[in-house]
Amino acid sequence: MMKISVIGGGSWGTALANHLAIKGYAPVKVLVINEKYLKEINEKHTNENYLPGVKLNKNVIATMNYEEIIEADLIILSVPSHEMRNVIKTLKKYLGEKKPILVSTTKGIEEGTHMRMSQVIISELGEEWVERLAVLSGPTHAEEVSRQLPSSCVVAAKKKELAELVQDIFMSPTLRVYINPDIIGVELGGALKNIIALAAGIADGLGYGDNTKAALITRGLTEIARLGVAMGAKMMTFAGLSGLGDLVVTCASMHSRNRRFGILIGQGKTLEEATKEVKQVAEGVRTCRAVYEMTRDMDLELPIITQCYKVLFEGKDPEIGVSELMTRGAKHEIEEVARDDFEW
Amino acid sequence: MMKISVIGGGSWGTALANHLAIKGYAPVKVLVINEKYLKEINEKHTNENYLPGVKLNKNVIATMNYEEIIEADLIILSVPSHEMRNVIKTLKKYLGEKKPILVSTTKGIEEGTHMRMSQVIISELGEEWVERLAVLSGPTHAEEVSRQLPSSCVVAAKKKELAELVQDIFMSPTLRVYINPDIIGVELGGALKNIIALAAGIADGLGYGDNTKAALITRGLTEIARLGVAMGAKMMTFAGLSGLGDLVVTCASMHSRNRRFGILIGQGKTLEEATKEVKQVAEGVRTCRAVYEMTRDMDLELPIITQCYKVLFEGKDPEIGVSELMTRGAKHEIEEVARDDFEW
Repeated sequence: MMKISVIGGGSWGTALANHLAIKGYAPVKVLVINEKYLKEINEKHTNENYLPGVKLNKNVIATMNYEEIIEADLIILSVPSHEMRNVIKTLKKYLGEKKPILVSTTKGIEEGTHMRMSQVIISELGEEWVERLAVLSGPTHAEEVSRQLPSSCVVAAKKKELAELVQDIFMSPTLRVYINPDIIGVELGGALKNIIALAAGIADGLGYGDNTKAALITRGLTEIARLGVAMGAKMMTFAGLSGLGDLVVTCASMHSRNRRFGILIGQGKTLEEATKEVKQVAEGVRTCRAVYEMTRDMDLELPIITQCYKVLFEGKDPEIGVSELMTRGAKHEIEEVARDDFEW
Repeated sequence: MMKISVIGGGSWGTALANHLAIKGYAPVKVLVINEKYLKEINEKHTNENYLPGVKLNKNVIATMNYEEIIEADLIILSVPSHEMRNVIKTLKKYLGEKKPILVSTTKGIEEGTHMRMSQVIISELGEEWVERLAVLSGPTHAEEVSRQLPSSCVVAAKKKELAELVQDIFMSPTLRVYINPDIIGVELGGALKNIIALAAGIADGLGYGDNTKAALITRGLTEIARLGVAMGAKMMTFAGLSGLGDLVVTCASMHSRNRRFGILIGQGKTLEEATKEVKQVAEGVRTCRAVYEMTRDMDLELPIITQCYKVLFEGKDPEIGVSELMTRGAKHEIEEVARDDFEW
């Protein structure tokens, strides 16, 4: 059996390590950042801070040494998006001539560079790693995967053989894995959905109902897809698990920090007040700013993202933002997709 | 201003009449089925049974006479799917030479014939009515539209001019209306989503989580789209308000009878027991049987709908059904759509 390790002992890293240990991979080493987690995982077989109530498989072994991590044939990267570049820089030093398969499970866009996570990884490790790199995304609350509730995700890679290999490694009776060649689309879905989750939270905070949220999800997905296609992704990927699936789970769930953050904004709190209350800036806030900056000079219609930006960063009244969304010019539902196919 | 009337004083018919009366159409006549509703709407300006707590505009006028209904330039059809054919037969007798615009807002497929509602209407009135007929669908709980919470819907018609006219009539600052030429897709989305809402309810009843539901919504929409395309619809319509939008709102909401019905099935109740408890057969049960019968001899992969049928009509254990869905052969995420575009 292959040797697998995980960089990042947060909710998702720990849940994936546990999932693979249950499948029989042994040991699955997890790189954690301090002694507390090391001891708790190795002695109590729990990670209460990130996966409360979950008993971990005994083959999940925490470590603080990169030397142990790089002994694997496959390394899962499960770190916050703003730490990815530093982690890869460190990993590079330890790897030497080793060329394990890398699987990125991190969702987000790097601030400043506006790079997707796979771009960050390749920019540090070099182009030849493109063929060793896969990304995994989808509607997967770590806590539910740990409780072995039926879940599904998607793996994207440049080479089909690699995608299929990673699919085999992760697939189980409770985690169904699909494959897709569109790395850009799979990564963007997971990052961009956070903006729409924020918007859905704002609508909830304003006291709006299920109709409003369904409209935000549907028209938000159209916006994500429009933006994604402009960035090189395939339209249909956004109708899949890493697009629609992840968007639905994020907009529906109170687990979502982005949604909770949005609710506070909708209730009239400022960005600063909401940040204080949620104790950190929601990922969707950063992504919203990045997308707004990236697309300002592009000829793209992104009404929801634009209103979100104005509410977050220009102090616009969210109720006026919604009102402007509702009263824009009358539209064809399918504006730019397969347009010929939709001519009257 | 145009004269508008509504056939059907249920939740949606009453909500739309009220919406148009608020927009200034006066009077908006609504055909109701008994004296009780007639008196309540005309004297108390409420329809407590269908729209509890909503005060109706005084220009919503109930009637029991088809003669008054046919005096309109536009007639909204808002009746249960199994009553559509009889209503149209009656309407035909009264219409004579009159040719009002018809707007169908009924979701469902006729039992036995497997016709969409627009097909039922045309089969009774004749082909020349195709140019006078529009359909309206989308994620619109009547109760929320009545409370003027921001909502959106889509209007489809064969002629663009008609779709645009109906769009103008219904559009308001709280109800945003898109247009789409794909009548088949718009009608099928509203009918087929009930099967997936049933499945989502079953998953809830089994105690599964948000991941499972997101997977059912995503893969369910893929199935709806696959089936819809085989029936002549356009793929992208299912990513819109009448597809994805309506599916999301139905799967999330406890208002949905289909979802509540599914929960009972997931908890181990039989079809008969669930029907008794919900007091009527959920629309999704009928649609599931119709689709299963229609597609049995077609070469279409519909795993969720098939498992749903077996659980509902063959007494299959829903847990086994889910398990079989999870452990089917490994799949490409984008199976048949734009396949060339997704080759490795």
